[in-house]
Amino acid sequence: MYPPTDRTTATRMRDRMSHDRAAVHAVLDEAYHCALGFVVDGEPRILPTLHVRVGETLYLHGSTGSRPLLAARGPDGLAVCVSVTLLDGLVYARSQFNHSANYRSVVAHGTAHLVTDDREKTEVLTALVEKVGAGRSRETRPPNRRELAETAVLALPLREVSLRARAGGVGDDEADLDLPYWAGVVPLRLTPGLPEPDAGVGVGVPGYLPAGGTPPTPAPTPSGPTPPAPR
Amino acid sequence: MYPPTDRTTATRMRDRMSHDRAAVHAVLDEAYHCALGFVVDGEPRILPTLHVRVGETLYLHGSTGSRPLLAARGPDGLAVCVSVTLLDGLVYARSQFNHSANYRSVVAHGTAHLVTDDREKTEVLTALVEKVGAGRSRETRPPNRRELAETAVLALPLREVSLRARAGGVGDDEADLDLPYWAGVVPLRLTPGLPEPDAGVGVGVPGYLPAGGTPPTPAPTPSGPTPPAPR
Repeated sequence: MYPPTDRTTATRMRDRMSHDRAAVHAVLDEAYHCALGFVVDGEPRILPTLHVRVGETLYLHGSTGSRPLLAARGPDGLAVCVSVTLLDGLVYARSQFNHSANYRSVVAHGTAHLVTDDREKTEVLTALVEKVGAGRSRETRPPNRRELAETAVLALPLREVSLRARAGGVGDDEADLDLPYWAGVVPLRLTPGLPEPDAGVGVGVPGYLPAGGTPPTPAPTPSGPTPPAPR
Repeated sequence: MYPPTDRTTATRMRDRMSHDRAAVHAVLDEAYHCALGFVVDGEPRILPTLHVRVGETLYLHGSTGSRPLLAARGPDGLAVCVSVTLLDGLVYARSQFNHSANYRSVVAHGTAHLVTDDREKTEVLTALVEKVGAGRSRETRPPNRRELAETAVLALPLREVSLRARAGGVGDDEADLDLPYWAGVVPLRLTPGLPEPDAGVGVGVPGYLPAGGTPPTPAPTPSGPTPPAPR
């Protein structure tokens, strides 16, 4: 469990909030991209970026020239708020008011620091590549010195973290159940299409990618557990 | 075109940035959820929520008790940054450095105000329901007075807005093209599964939902135009 704080305690719909580490990790690992929030001159900013979790650290990918990366260079780091959201379905109720969405959403607060150690940075870049294909870091050219210098990575320790989620079916009021309207859930799932090889590629599609001819994975049912995204 | 400002001008990869209204609208209309960024006591906060665009206003859905909604109550409104991201594919390069993602991402800056006019609020709630099914606002029970009072909506005028996007294939260096590694793009698409009716529903699946037995829409090719998400 992540210890709840003022910033990670629900003011409403408390039953949707959790601080369970395994559940938080599952969302961070399934999602490819996040929203990185920070403050510039008192104003809110958001940079969408890619992330990877390694243990209890969330790493955020960036370029050396981007604003938050520059700001995180200093010894104090950068106060950030990171959100990761997976949309699992749309909920159609008989009443407009009870329309909703099924989702899993992690929000993490803390201070991010620029990763300056080349070994740590290399490990993060390996983890980012492994995230999109287990074993792929051995089937690609690793970064050279120039590429390593051109890549910036922020590290955010996972300490103040919460998960908000809705799952399941329609929550119509008792009095609305006889209304003659369709109600139900439409599951949504980020689904991979068939791999499209670059020109000149002479090797077959790796095993960690969806194979040619295989139909996409069916969407999860709202009541059952959600399988991890294809890697 | 949205007029570029300091906050919506790229400091790097300028070719990925656009201010085209139609392209911005298309992303906002296809995506169901957004990240709403704001500042509390100098610290960044992000609230994931649902949105709908009506003309040149982005409306953000919330509950009357949530922090940003309370903060936006005042005459000055609330300084916000909203980001909406659609992940269109994963890009597998021969070099780890050139791994990337295809995406379309809108960021909007400005001051959000709480919608206090009941007519405007009703129109927004109608638009939110229409977004998940054209015609659905006529096949549902509209909000009553209590439900209207319990729903809060923020309005953000679309003035300072940018779109960042990557599309297309692998960007490997010339020198890497002969490496014996698989490279290519795996398209990703948020795909609806079959509708799961609530218990006791006596009417058929509406036409705006994926019909029973129809296979999911194939993922878009990275070169072609991306069709709008199923409504």
